[in-house]
Amino acid sequence: MLPFDILEYQDRLSKTKQRMAENGIEVLLITDPANMNYLSGYDAWSFYVHQMLVIIIDEAQPIWIGRYQDASGARSMTWIYDDNVIPYPDYYVQSTTYHPMEFVAQILTQIGHGNRYTGVEMDNYYFSAKAYECLKQNLPNATFKDATSLVNRVRIIKSDQEIEYMKRAAQIAELTMYKGINSIRAGVRECDTAADIYYQMVTGTEEFGGDYPSIVPLLPSGENTSTPHLTWTEKRFQEGDSVIVELAGCYKRYHVPMARTVSIGAPAENLKQITPIVVEGLNEVLQTAKPGVTCHDLEAAWRKSLRKHGIEKEARLGYSVGLNYPPDWGEHTASIRMGDTTVLQPNMTFHLIPGLWFDNYGIEISETFRVTDTGCELFTNCPRDLIINEPYNMNSSDKIS
Amino acid sequence: MLPFDILEYQDRLSKTKQRMAENGIEVLLITDPANMNYLSGYDAWSFYVHQMLVIIIDEAQPIWIGRYQDASGARSMTWIYDDNVIPYPDYYVQSTTYHPMEFVAQILTQIGHGNRYTGVEMDNYYFSAKAYECLKQNLPNATFKDATSLVNRVRIIKSDQEIEYMKRAAQIAELTMYKGINSIRAGVRECDTAADIYYQMVTGTEEFGGDYPSIVPLLPSGENTSTPHLTWTEKRFQEGDSVIVELAGCYKRYHVPMARTVSIGAPAENLKQITPIVVEGLNEVLQTAKPGVTCHDLEAAWRKSLRKHGIEKEARLGYSVGLNYPPDWGEHTASIRMGDTTVLQPNMTFHLIPGLWFDNYGIEISETFRVTDTGCELFTNCPRDLIINEPYNMNSSDKIS
Repeated sequence: MLPFDILEYQDRLSKTKQRMAENGIEVLLITDPANMNYLSGYDAWSFYVHQMLVIIIDEAQPIWIGRYQDASGARSMTWIYDDNVIPYPDYYVQSTTYHPMEFVAQILTQIGHGNRYTGVEMDNYYFSAKAYECLKQNLPNATFKDATSLVNRVRIIKSDQEIEYMKRAAQIAELTMYKGINSIRAGVRECDTAADIYYQMVTGTEEFGGDYPSIVPLLPSGENTSTPHLTWTEKRFQEGDSVIVELAGCYKRYHVPMARTVSIGAPAENLKQITPIVVEGLNEVLQTAKPGVTCHDLEAAWRKSLRKHGIEKEARLGYSVGLNYPPDWGEHTASIRMGDTTVLQPNMTFHLIPGLWFDNYGIEISETFRVTDTGCELFTNCPRDLIINEPYNMNSSDKIS
Repeated sequence: MLPFDILEYQDRLSKTKQRMAENGIEVLLITDPANMNYLSGYDAWSFYVHQMLVIIIDEAQPIWIGRYQDASGARSMTWIYDDNVIPYPDYYVQSTTYHPMEFVAQILTQIGHGNRYTGVEMDNYYFSAKAYECLKQNLPNATFKDATSLVNRVRIIKSDQEIEYMKRAAQIAELTMYKGINSIRAGVRECDTAADIYYQMVTGTEEFGGDYPSIVPLLPSGENTSTPHLTWTEKRFQEGDSVIVELAGCYKRYHVPMARTVSIGAPAENLKQITPIVVEGLNEVLQTAKPGVTCHDLEAAWRKSLRKHGIEKEARLGYSVGLNYPPDWGEHTASIRMGDTTVLQPNMTFHLIPGLWFDNYGIEISETFRVTDTGCELFTNCPRDLIINEPYNMNSSDKIS
């Protein structure tokens, strides 16, 4: 039932403990659901309540602490002993009287680990300010250390099995992108294209099914393409609109994202002019990517390419990607930007998404790649260009009002 | 373009300020995306980076602070002045060197509000421990107060327009539940049913489109029904399986959730026996719900009904529901459980979901209701019973392998 061999989980745990030792951490409290999954196999939409995986440097097994009704999932889906699954009663859930971290502190104290050097993921969505205050108050003898991204940095180099899962995610991403592109015609509502995208993304292929991606499909059209993170609306596409499609295929929580920009009919002049500049810059980055270069170097290649055309771009170009849960598919480790000194190594995987947004339009063409022994290889195969759609389509005419 | 009249936003703001005053809060830093949306209209999948809405008790307009590339969305989608949209540069994003809360502290100091009684949403997904530490360090003269759920408690009573949006969400929920139920047959993969559900949920109706719900469809089958928060897999349904379908229709971020349990062919004896007990308990709660009774009273009605059959249930029965973003559609205000003294008032809306989970099976039948002047009314109309499907279906025979 586990998606990876138990030896792989043990290897991940051992690498995590090594980093704990390097950072003087004896007890690590993991609240990032992707890190919990990575080390234990636990996968459920239960992260909207407080839960964690506890790694104790001198104990063989992690401990899962979470809500009572989720404990059976933790017992059945993970490789950890049933005895190490410790549920808290439901009155701790979203209460103003009780806090789950009081329970966690009690358990840590009871098992004799309440006074140790304790790592917490300080800048994670699932470790709130209140959770930290509550732990500090109830574990007065513990010394807390920031362990944000400690496990994420173990995750940055993928195993062969993880790459296999990402290749499946890539197949889904590609199928879904084509489905989305084909759905974009004048008269079709954004929500109808989003529905087509979702269907394909979740049904997957005949051989394997899709998982939910950590970010919903982003689908701004017309002037909204000037803003990257808008989701779909009920608006109908119009001839002459451009549409940005950003989505990911997801398989067993592993993501391969991709973005394309679609023009419905003849593209506007500004979009036509910017496209080859973006593609050239993308190609430069992909030609630069290989073991030994840094994320900083990748950004420099892009910057140099764009500068030839008089364009300066301020945002980061991409990030390490793989296993994740909402609200982000990025790994929160390496970013492709100036000053990021992460050195590329084989089986690192990045989403390279150099979006450009202007006052009333924007463009996104992205690729997800794996660093190989000598360079990089793409996960998906889709024209790296502006997509120009016929504005109307016989097949979708029934949707046009 | 705004989903509500500007007067409604101003009314919400004024109610928020009143609560701020009652709690001795002069500056409120809102990081919950639903609260940001509620007060400003801002709606984008940008909450995976730090962002906030600042409410200053003696200023007419909120201030939006967020990532540079998201600022154009904040300017175009909200009712607040463009000058009150303050973007931070991209090097603050997911950096180990810079933190967006340093920027926030600088802005608050510059505009003369760095030394005030400052409310923060301590137990929110989008206010990390690190965010709080960083604010405290950079605003040494501010006094921080916990404002968790302060705005959520304004949201608990819905306006008529909000109820209209929930009615649309309900139409989508109902259509989607039927679509899901019809898709569940022996031989169909869980992911294929999830895909059908997603398609319907997002395409919505001919008149209006669907939005993404804050929780993905939950679809455990067979023994997995003993655990509530499992998402779909690639497994094929089998004759004799039961399947729990929990989903929500969503319209402009307003949710109407519902759950049903489906048996593929003749139901197992245990499921057949538990169903009327759950339905009876549900009916008792719905008959009890009216203005003046408390959430505690609703739970007592359920408890009393179940006790007749020798069953005790420990989990909460439901929660206030409406506007939200991932990872939860619950409002984090009132819970239908023992000890919750929230008094029901007209236009409060609840998801009543008394799930029962046993060792190797479970049942969920739920209803979302609105408190009326004299009782309550349901949002959806779907048989409040175990659904028994024919195991095979001509229409889906092409999916059966």
